[in-house]
Parts: sequence; C-alpha cells; structure tokens
Amino acid sequence: MKKKITIAVDAMGGEDAPKKNIEGLNIFLKKNSLKNDFEILLYGDENILKNELNKHKISQNKCKIIHTKSVVSDEETPLTAIKSSKDTSMWNSVKSQIDGSADISLSAGNTGVLLVISRMILKTMEDVSKPALAGLWPSKNGISVVLDLGANIECDEKNLVDFSEMGAALYKSIFPDQKPIVSLLNIGSEEIKGTEVIKKAYSVLKDMDEKNNFLFGGYIEGNKIMDGSTNVIVTDGFTGNVALKTAEGTAKFITDSLKKSLSENIFTKISVLLSYFSLRKFKSKLDPRKYNGAIFLGLNGPVVKSHGGTDALGFYYSIDLCYRIIKGNLMDQIKNNLSHLNDQK
Amino acid sequence: MKKKITIAVDAMGGEDAPKKNIEGLNIFLKKNSLKNDFEILLYGDENILKNELNKHKISQNKCKIIHTKSVVSDEETPLTAIKSSKDTSMWNSVKSQIDGSADISLSAGNTGVLLVISRMILKTMEDVSKPALAGLWPSKNGISVVLDLGANIECDEKNLVDFSEMGAALYKSIFPDQKPIVSLLNIGSEEIKGTEVIKKAYSVLKDMDEKNNFLFGGYIEGNKIMDGSTNVIVTDGFTGNVALKTAEGTAKFITDSLKKSLSENIFTKISVLLSYFSLRKFKSKLDPRKYNGAIFLGLNGPVVKSHGGTDALGFYYSIDLCYRIIKGNLMDQIKNNLSHLNDQK
Repeated sequence: MKKKITIAVDAMGGEDAPKKNIEGLNIFLKKNSLKNDFEILLYGDENILKNELNKHKISQNKCKIIHTKSVVSDEETPLTAIKSSKDTSMWNSVKSQIDGSADISLSAGNTGVLLVISRMILKTMEDVSKPALAGLWPSKNGISVVLDLGANIECDEKNLVDFSEMGAALYKSIFPDQKPIVSLLNIGSEEIKGTEVIKKAYSVLKDMDEKNNFLFGGYIEGNKIMDGSTNVIVTDGFTGNVALKTAEGTAKFITDSLKKSLSENIFTKISVLLSYFSLRKFKSKLDPRKYNGAIFLGLNGPVVKSHGGTDALGFYYSIDLCYRIIKGNLMDQIKNNLSHLNDQK
Repeated sequence: MKKKITIAVDAMGGEDAPKKNIEGLNIFLKKNSLKNDFEILLYGDENILKNELNKHKISQNKCKIIHTKSVVSDEETPLTAIKSSKDTSMWNSVKSQIDGSADISLSAGNTGVLLVISRMILKTMEDVSKPALAGLWPSKNGISVVLDLGANIECDEKNLVDFSEMGAALYKSIFPDQKPIVSLLNIGSEEIKGTEVIKKAYSVLKDMDEKNNFLFGGYIEGNKIMDGSTNVIVTDGFTGNVALKTAEGTAKFITDSLKKSLSENIFTKISVLLSYFSLRKFKSKLDPRKYNGAIFLGLNGPVVKSHGGTDALGFYYSIDLCYRIIKGNLMDQIKNNLSHLNDQK
C-alpha cells in the first residue's frame, strides 16, 4: 500500500488560532471526504484542540493530535526563538518531517521564526545554494509561481538558477500536465538589460534549455507577471517582496476606489445589485485567500507559510496546497531538475 | 519683467508625432489662454509643424518653431545615436537648455537615447552623484513621486540620499504648500531589515531630519506606496522599475477582469449604464495619461519623458507638468536641498 500523504499542521499559529485552523481543516475534510490517501497531524494543546474538533464533530480517523506545550508568539525574534521554541507547536510540526512521520508542514505563525526554524531543522538540500520562498499569483491563465519573495535579499546567478529549477518543480507538482515556462524578472526584455547577476543567470538558463524539464522564457518585465505568458517568475528576494507587496497595494487601491464609486448614490447601488453575480465572480478571482500559502523550497522537506491574518477559508487553501504539492511529488521533481542541472556541469 | 517659462518640445518624438504633440499643445494653450508667463519652443520639421499648427489655428505668439532636419528613430541605440543625432529634434530641444533659451525640455521619443543625450548635453549637477528618473503615482491622497524608475540599476547610499533630496524638491515644486514626507522602499518597516545600502541611507536621512526641507518617513513597503502616507518613495532603478511595471500590470489585470465581468449579460450591461458617471470618475482617477511624464532629475536642467504611446491628452499633461515644475522653481529647490545636505558634512 502506498504511504499516505502526511501533513503536519501547526494548529496554534496565526491570528485567531486554533479556531480558524480547525475550521479550515473542517472545510478540507468535507471537500475530501471520499479520499483516504492523506493524514493530518495537528500540533498544539491537546485539550484545546480536542474541544475545537468536537465543535465541528471532526472524528480523529484522518487527523491526529500531537500535544505540544507552548506557542511561538508574534513578538518573538528568530534569535531568541531558537533557544525557547523547542516545545512549541511550530517547532514540532516542522520537526515531524525529519522524524519521517510528515511529508510537509504548514504554519500561519511568526514568519521570521518559521524560516529560521525550518532551515535549522530541515537543512538545505544538497546541490541547492539557497532556499527560497515561493508564492502563487493570479494570472490571466490561472496561477503563476513567483520566487524568491523575501528569504534572500541578495542573490547571485547560482541562486537564481536554483530558484528556476525549484520554481519549475513546484509548478509541475501543482499542475502535472504542463511543462512550465520559467522567466527571469528584469527591467527590459532585451538581452543587454539588467544587472550582471541576471545576465549570467540568463546565459546559464538559455544554454540548458533543451535538456530541461521546463522551457526558458527569457526576461519578463513587471507588467507581464500576471498576463499568463509565463508560469514561473524568478527574482531575488528583495525585488520579489517589493513586487508582491506593490501588486497587493495596487489591487487594494483599485478595489477601494471601485467600492467607493459604486456606493456613491442610489443608481450605483442598484447597479451593484444588477451585476451582483458577475461582481462576485470578479471578486472571487482576486480573492487573496485562494493564493494563500508561500512555499519554502530547497530544504529537505517543504514548509508552507499561511498568512497569519487569513481566515478559515484561507487556511483551507493552504492545507489543500500542501496536499497537492505532495501528491505531485514536489521533492522528486526538485531532485530531478537539479540532477539535469548537474549533468551539464 | 520676469523671464517667461520656456519649454522646449521635441515635436517629432513618439508614436503618431507630430499630430498628437500639436494636439496636446493645443489643449495646453486653450487651458492657459489667459496666461502670458510661458513660451513653447517646437523642435521639428518647419513645414510639417506649420501645417499642424494651422490645422488647429494655433497662432505663433506663444509658440515658436525651430527647424530641425531629422528625427531619432525608435530603433536607434544610445551608442549609435550620439554620433548621428545632432540634427534631430530631440538633440536640439535638449540643447536649447544650455543655450539658455529653454528652462526644461520634453520628448515622447526613444527613452534610452533621450537619457544618454540629456546626460551628455546637460551634464550632472555639481554635488549630485547620479541623475535619476522620477515618476508620478496616483495615491489615496493625490499624487506621489517615485524614483529611481530605471536610470540606475545599481545604487549606493549616496545615490539614495541624493534621490531623496531631488525627489523632495520635485514634489515641492509641484505642490509648493506641502513639506513632503520622504521614505525608503524596503521589505519591512523595522530598522534591521533591508540591504546594507538601504540601512546606511536610512541612518544618513534619519540624522539630518531637522534641518531638512522634507520629513523623513523611514522605511515603506510596496503595499503602502499608494496609501498616501508618504509623498516621495525612494529606491534604486531596478526595484523602482519593477515596482512601477508590476503596478501597471496589476491595474490592467484587475480592470480587464472587471470589464469582462461587467459585459457578461444584460443585467451587468444595464448596471454599467446606471453607474456610468461613477465608473467614469473611477476610470478617470486611474487614467495613466494624468500621470504621464517621467522627470529626469540631477542634470543641469530637467528633462521630461512622455510615454511614446500616449495620446494628445497624455501629451498635454506632460506639457502641463513641465510648466508646473518650472513655475515651482525645481532647480532652486534641488540646489537648496543639496546645500542643506552639504552643510552637514
């Protein structure tokens, strides 16, 4: 019998935890009630979690509570957390990946601490120069992967090439039927533009095009990230973080302006009623909860970071992402891509 | 009598030139028909321009044609252009700034060539480490200034401090009644985050806070660029260019999705009619033509670059921007800010 997909969940991390975590789990269990290929390990205070599970009448045949004493607070810095966090739900959920019990772990807790703990416990994969944080972006054709989103503020060409390999593997694990197109984020599409680091990464990726499990799309500019022409967008952590947050800010600015316009008078209010279902579809497409979950790649096991402020539905999407990533054999895909890279050296 | 504000316009640069350039001029002249404090110098083919002016019955009392033989093509690279462009409308409009006839020049032509020509002809100002390209962004409270947008892909702390001084001067020339808040774009708001270069620029700007003509707002993240909390956002040219284009791409993605939703069926189409005026206001607020014109700062004279693909209204906004910048004494504002900076050394 094939081993079950095992997801370790930090049930105590994030705002409004463990309430939203268990509600999110409940949505996941209901949507996947016919499947028997997974198991959820819940890390946190046993009594509190039992109580939450009972509220939703969740049986423990697909999920198991593992008792932990404490929780990483949002105020904790990565430095202090290393010493004091060994009894926390976050530490133990990540640690379950090296004990062999879990394939992936998920937390909505303190981001800085999660990244440091994950690096410490899981260690960077052989042949990977630096781990990277990848995110899902809505695009015209569905979803794209963007990395790095802030794990490494300065990167060299080897890092960017590794990010390309890992990003392509992540995309392929989520969408197994597609050969992803990977592009480097730059300030122009011509070969002469950009920093020396980007130009070097470009020449490495261009040369290994044929043998690869992905297609190299060259350079892409910021205005093309969401147009669906490329599936994986690679950049350093500083630029990626600014791009992600600028997109969020722009989306908020526009939707706020639109809301204001549409609540101006009685006519606009009637108009909203008339276009209710279409506007709902529009809103749903942009719903950030659908893209909730940044994936920490390049360690000996993937770690997913949910937004701390998301709600139960957002947390559900993160659990679902964990399930899909492991079902799509992320770790094998990464190893496979990296081996192609090494063949060429 | 006070010297007139003199704007040198490359009348032959950009798509659909000189038609849209002269139409844009016509809008400007009509809106400013009561003012006598400006003069427009039009650089280009005399016969063609005369013909265009006649079409709109524009008299030559506020504008003067200066004949030039050729035009910089979009295919020209900066390197080849230096040799071959001395007879062009672009070269001569910028050159008019050192002959003393013009205070500012404006072109919608080839960006790369314009930046190189401008540097060559006007030279970098004393005490400025690098010139920078600044843009106007819509924000919750009106308009913000962002720089650098791509003139310098790698920057040190001195560059970022200079950009702060120049960006503040630009903002103050456009909005004379406000003391601008200047912030550094970063990936977190805590002092410990960011690259070494950004941290060093932060400590310089923090220390000179009191004497300055602007307030230092510390770090700002990408999602706050448009929330109106800061007036001038400073970053290196690579990050600024990616942020600008990502914002453009996000805006396009959202408005395209919205348009699609609102043309789905008869109800949504009626709803658009009902909210026609409100949606028009919404659209107008986001209209990129209103923010058309990137300002090249730090040379011995400002140069404004209009989008090549903009229309007559967009070109009008660029002419208007030139007028406002000079009326607001941009060059004196920059010198004043730089002298404060030097006092501290």
